Amino acid sequence: MERMRCVIQYDGTKYAGYQIQPNGITIQEELEKALSKMHKGRKVKVTASGRTDSGVHAMGQVIHFDSDLTIPYQNWKRALTSLLPDDIHISSVEGVSRDFHARYDAKGKEYRYFVWNEREPDVFNRYYRYHVKADLDIGRMKTACRYLLGEHDFTSFCSPKTDIKGSKVRTIHEASVEKEGSELVFTFNGSGFLYNMVRILVGTLLEIGRNEREPDDILNILKAKSRDAAGKTAPPQGLFLWSVFYEE
Amino acid sequence: MERMRCVIQYDGTKYAGYQIQPNGITIQEELEKALSKMHKGRKVKVTASGRTDSGVHAMGQVIHFDSDLTIPYQNWKRALTSLLPDDIHISSVEGVSRDFHARYDAKGKEYRYFVWNEREPDVFNRYYRYHVKADLDIGRMKTACRYLLGEHDFTSFCSPKTDIKGSKVRTIHEASVEKEGSELVFTFNGSGFLYNMVRILVGTLLEIGRNEREPDDILNILKAKSRDAAGKTAPPQGLFLWSVFYEE
Repeated sequence: MERMRCVIQYDGTKYAGYQIQPNGITIQEELEKALSKMHKGRKVKVTASGRTDSGVHAMGQVIHFDSDLTIPYQNWKRALTSLLPDDIHISSVEGVSRDFHARYDAKGKEYRYFVWNEREPDVFNRYYRYHVKADLDIGRMKTACRYLLGEHDFTSFCSPKTDIKGSKVRTIHEASVEKEGSELVFTFNGSGFLYNMVRILVGTLLEIGRNEREPDDILNILKAKSRDAAGKTAPPQGLFLWSVFYEE
Repeated sequence: MERMRCVIQYDGTKYAGYQIQPNGITIQEELEKALSKMHKGRKVKVTASGRTDSGVHAMGQVIHFDSDLTIPYQNWKRALTSLLPDDIHISSVEGVSRDFHARYDAKGKEYRYFVWNEREPDVFNRYYRYHVKADLDIGRMKTACRYLLGEHDFTSFCSPKTDIKGSKVRTIHEASVEKEGSELVFTFNGSGFLYNMVRILVGTLLEIGRNEREPDDILNILKAKSRDAAGKTAPPQGLFLWSVFYEE
């Protein structure tokens, strides 16, 4: 048996999220189905760095699984790709040590969130951008981002639906927003993220950008340790799990 | 009765093309359904500058229809938009003279065709870009584009399925290809285009870019006046009807 690590890309539009669940097809299900075909019908369990919600995308999700197939690495990618639908793409496949774990070994993650900020919608990006018509003050949002940096208890930015019982302290290494043409790109790089955390962060920052809150409200929201203190949850389609970091 | 002219944008992915037909939903059908709702169930016929095929998109398709509703122009857009699915967007609505005709008055059109030119696919653009993995020589394609300029009989670049019985002479004012990052953008601006013409032009230019044909083959292909002389038809998803020109 050998442990394999893959970096994968997916368009989450038509999926009920990453993780297998009773209603709706999932990314994990498609991956396990493809691997099962390669392993003569045997079940192959896939473990990801973490879940993504329905409608959320990935540029660099990381998964691992074990296999006893003796296929050259360069052929794995082609074989798996040919068995997957065209909205899931295998970027790389490599053999790793038997104790590598896609979730437990992840040292950090980067998420990006894309906003289409024009009066008119962009029909071609309706599944990949959140359309915000209002004028947004980027300077105010940049100021607010600075209050997020470092180690904080992010309870206020976590959906009450979470199943995390332990600490909600996380460290944010980068929180930024940049304007690129008609788009805003939010980037969050941190030790870990709670359930809906990036979407609640973006929803709150957009309220600051629309002058509905002050940038330093972030301090009060963090202090409150209550989901009600933060802003609305931004919709899933603007969110991309951009990359997952491991120790070399 | 007043004649209305609209500029519309649509994602053609899930449609069986622009024009109403027995199998599959069409853009025209969605427009007429929305207008019928606004006109107490009465049928309102919509006329476009021309058809687009299944999977082909539009940034600036132009349509006209007649209406006896007395709605301020600025409210038309919102009313229609609210009745249309989110892959069809009304960019503008204006009243025009009773003899304006979206098809007969069109003096020219611009089409753009987008190619994703990397080894790896881009899952987020699979419905909006044609993925070409091969290395392409842009210089050779640029040279070939020059042979297309001016007035020619484009029979060789017309699908035999066309219902045009008359002249296949058309004038091309601009034919170009530019590299923008990982993408190639082909632009064709001309007096009119035959059935599948842009897709056959792009398919042929790509063969020239891959060194399978010479740039001056274009001259022989035009001379042959036979569809068999030209290259393959490029797939629909890279094609956008970009704009339609009228006399002021």
